[in-house]
Amino acid sequence: MKTRAVAAPAPPSGRGEVVLVGGGIGDPDLITVAGLHELRSAEVVVHDRLAPLALLEGLSAELIDVGKIPRGEFTPQERINQVLIEHAAAGRKVVRLKGGDSFVFGRGGEEWLACAEAGIGVRTVPGISSAIAAAELAGVPVTHRGLSQGFTVVSGHVAPGDPRGDLDWAALARTGTTLVILMGVGTLPKICATLIEHGLSPDTPAITVADAGLPSMRTIRAPLAEIAATVEREGLGAPAVTIIGAVAGLRLE
Amino acid sequence: MKTRAVAAPAPPSGRGEVVLVGGGIGDPDLITVAGLHELRSAEVVVHDRLAPLALLEGLSAELIDVGKIPRGEFTPQERINQVLIEHAAAGRKVVRLKGGDSFVFGRGGEEWLACAEAGIGVRTVPGISSAIAAAELAGVPVTHRGLSQGFTVVSGHVAPGDPRGDLDWAALARTGTTLVILMGVGTLPKICATLIEHGLSPDTPAITVADAGLPSMRTIRAPLAEIAATVEREGLGAPAVTIIGAVAGLRLE
Repeated sequence: MKTRAVAAPAPPSGRGEVVLVGGGIGDPDLITVAGLHELRSAEVVVHDRLAPLALLEGLSAELIDVGKIPRGEFTPQERINQVLIEHAAAGRKVVRLKGGDSFVFGRGGEEWLACAEAGIGVRTVPGISSAIAAAELAGVPVTHRGLSQGFTVVSGHVAPGDPRGDLDWAALARTGTTLVILMGVGTLPKICATLIEHGLSPDTPAITVADAGLPSMRTIRAPLAEIAATVEREGLGAPAVTIIGAVAGLRLE
Repeated sequence: MKTRAVAAPAPPSGRGEVVLVGGGIGDPDLITVAGLHELRSAEVVVHDRLAPLALLEGLSAELIDVGKIPRGEFTPQERINQVLIEHAAAGRKVVRLKGGDSFVFGRGGEEWLACAEAGIGVRTVPGISSAIAAAELAGVPVTHRGLSQGFTVVSGHVAPGDPRGDLDWAALARTGTTLVILMGVGTLPKICATLIEHGLSPDTPAITVADAGLPSMRTIRAPLAEIAATVEREGLGAPAVTIIGAVAGLRLE
């Protein structure tokens, strides 16, 4: 079954499908026009707390919150996959609404594979990702002529030295690209120390952006050697993104 | 003058401003709802050939094409900046429409700085970038549990060894992240050879995606050692994006 492409034709009437929709970050108007169209024509919307919840208002679809189960734990991924498959197999159009983009630390690939293995048609509509847009909404371009010819996005969820990690932090310190760290407030001290240990200048500009795209957005700037302590002192919490590199020293404001 | 945030209040009536809008890639419905709103309320739209041109249909704004000048050369960046500033200084709302995202190799930061220095208010609305979405629309997630904990985006415009480049390709070969190369069809042979020379396995899966998001989208898969020759043999042209890493071996279709 062909399953790709945002512009793929809808399946025959009565045949279910799953559409992974990136809901963007912060401002609900940062969803794409295509994504909004999919939401409005959905029969079932499977969501969590990461996408802007205002997107759910006024929808006629059945809403299923897989963000939490009663005891406050996250719904296991296998159970989410099962929910998507069950509703689509019953002939419904199911939208899986994600924060940001489904394919950037969103486990969209896993959901896609599970659906495809179950014979369910899947499509994806890209979303605005904090990987690029958190910096942007704080006035920091991830690339800039004369300052940065590329950018690297990693999850801070797994700290340097953690055996679950497969990133080479010595190499990450030396690529010459802007470094964007998602979800890494807790591991930021270890990450910054590791980058400095491997040769990145302690004076490298850095900025941490919390609540990007929301009226509550906050930003903190400090050199690499001081950003982690500054973020902790100022009480910046998740979701936060840290951008490290010369571009973080630009002041577009 | 405060100039950031997509949700910033509009300037006082009659006071011009510049809004950098990321137009997304391929499908015109991949623009954000916020971006479309800005376009529709613009008095002047400054565009080139990189954003989906269907976005310009039906607008009441004055359209200024800075993609080409009569002799087929590109309009110099300084002249584009000047156009933005002149129209905003005359009290108009100016939208600078870009392909993808303004801050990913889009020179949005330069335009922002030029406007800010001239005292013109600037905002930015993020767009869907081919950095993430070209892979996605071809069914390749840039991150995937067990395969990739991050991704690196570079421009292939400047080849390894070119004195204008400031990327460390030896480090890029070793980060452990998915590597995404934008605008690099011509330099792809040199890039792939350099990555292999610095230790990336010749068997690393790779995929090149041309015309992402358009009905004419084409994809070519090959191991890193063969992707450049395969792309050339198949005649894949710009705009094309190449994704290198284990995720390129996933077959989400």
